[in-house]
Amino acid sequence: MKIIESDFQAWMGDIQARTEAALARLLPPAHMAPARLHEAMRYATLEGGKRVRPLLAFAAGEVAAASPERLEMASCAVELIHAYSLVHDDLPCMDNDVLRRGKPTVHVEYDEATALLVGDALQSLAFQLLSDQRLADDARVQLDMVRTLALAAGSRGMAGGQQIDLESTGKTLTLPELEVMHIHKTGALIRGAVALGAACGRVDPGQKNALDRYGKAIGLAFQVVDDVLDYDASTSTLGKTAGKDSRQGKPTYVSTLGLARARELAGELRGEALAALECLGERARRLRQLADFIVLRKF
Amino acid sequence: MKIIESDFQAWMGDIQARTEAALARLLPPAHMAPARLHEAMRYATLEGGKRVRPLLAFAAGEVAAASPERLEMASCAVELIHAYSLVHDDLPCMDNDVLRRGKPTVHVEYDEATALLVGDALQSLAFQLLSDQRLADDARVQLDMVRTLALAAGSRGMAGGQQIDLESTGKTLTLPELEVMHIHKTGALIRGAVALGAACGRVDPGQKNALDRYGKAIGLAFQVVDDVLDYDASTSTLGKTAGKDSRQGKPTYVSTLGLARARELAGELRGEALAALECLGERARRLRQLADFIVLRKF
Repeated sequence: MKIIESDFQAWMGDIQARTEAALARLLPPAHMAPARLHEAMRYATLEGGKRVRPLLAFAAGEVAAASPERLEMASCAVELIHAYSLVHDDLPCMDNDVLRRGKPTVHVEYDEATALLVGDALQSLAFQLLSDQRLADDARVQLDMVRTLALAAGSRGMAGGQQIDLESTGKTLTLPELEVMHIHKTGALIRGAVALGAACGRVDPGQKNALDRYGKAIGLAFQVVDDVLDYDASTSTLGKTAGKDSRQGKPTYVSTLGLARARELAGELRGEALAALECLGERARRLRQLADFIVLRKF
Repeated sequence: MKIIESDFQAWMGDIQARTEAALARLLPPAHMAPARLHEAMRYATLEGGKRVRPLLAFAAGEVAAASPERLEMASCAVELIHAYSLVHDDLPCMDNDVLRRGKPTVHVEYDEATALLVGDALQSLAFQLLSDQRLADDARVQLDMVRTLALAAGSRGMAGGQQIDLESTGKTLTLPELEVMHIHKTGALIRGAVALGAACGRVDPGQKNALDRYGKAIGLAFQVVDDVLDYDASTSTLGKTAGKDSRQGKPTYVSTLGLARARELAGELRGEALAALECLGERARRLRQLADFIVLRKF
């Protein structure tokens, strides 16, 4: 497999820095009342994560020749939904996690009630961002972006996937059942990130369809790799409690398929993602590199 | 004070029935996967409450000559935000309430994790509704509606008010502090309901301003009356655990002002609300009746 190029590393660093700066600017200041809530919202969102969804939105935006200013806003909206989902997912009634990205989780650092409200308010803020500025030349396209994010986040998307996850604990799932869970839980928002990035610029229906196939495959690949990493990584390198999914009796790609087959599946999904991009030419270069990055990452 | 007229009762029953039917239609069916989540979302939303926010949206819509179809959609979006806030507010880490509208709360009837996801998914669905159909002649106006709801629900609106509420438990608040809390916690979404109802039709800037002053006054009046009712109602008539706010050490208008002055304040806020409507003539009839209904209600 291809070695990730240094210009890709630089591009990635640039998008991550842009996203961080935009989030810092768009989140309410920590001193603004109610200060504890705003401080906790910033704690939950800033200095965290690989920003995979913003990277995908920006990479899809290259296909659509979208402006960086629009991509920043759309990326932040998706990242706020992602951040809220992590805060709620870590709560005692869900995964009861105390460590996230090497830091105490929000309900540990603050308290449960604040963590609940942090998640709620981050979700509202995501939709505020999508409505706030001219993200598209046509306001109808922008309304479609609101719709895309709402569907990706809701009961037929991410929240629905988490419900399936809840109900799957302690059960053995078939591969199709596991896929349904992850297509919703992780896949919907990743696919949404690609769609929103593209909507910031212009794509024809064929390009839109190709990007959607890419987003679907890479969303699933992301989860398969996560399961593999969760299985064999140690707490210190992953920055979260490793191996917890299997310990909590949650079905994973590793528990369903075994480690070797799960790795193979990740490679196959990478192949599907790359195949979807074939019609897009050089403009899809970053999306190709991201497919490699997501599947070949070791952390 | 004026006796509430029977044609108002009929109008109110009509809006309540419309809202119920629209919510039943717009919520995902209970059998759709993930069925437990969708069933719980419907449990949390249907057959419940006085639908004060939809009533306000429809009444404001009369000023703006808005179509019932648009008002239904906007009303449902606001009501979904309200329903989500109740589900999260009832959770053990918040108010830890077991009874709501005479039924077990969502986390009691289902479980905490499902209740968390129900709230999350109801919020997403609210924004999906606002993006879903032509709610306004101009898509930019519709984007403004998304923004209005996001601001009303978020950290500078309802969620922020709940944070202030959390931090106020066991404290004595001054009247201005109590007002700040309730302007956010209850007032923001009620004000938002009035604004969204108006945005479904056409109002000039003067009318918009008058409606906003009405919404602000009536939102506060609603909470003052709630505190009075919470103080002196019994569990059986209110359908929720009565008197709990004062027992939990939460400051209320009654604890801050005393019962007599709190009742007076409600009357004064009704006066402010009615004064704001003066320039709107006969079209504001329903809003006037609602001011009476909200302040004079006994249940």
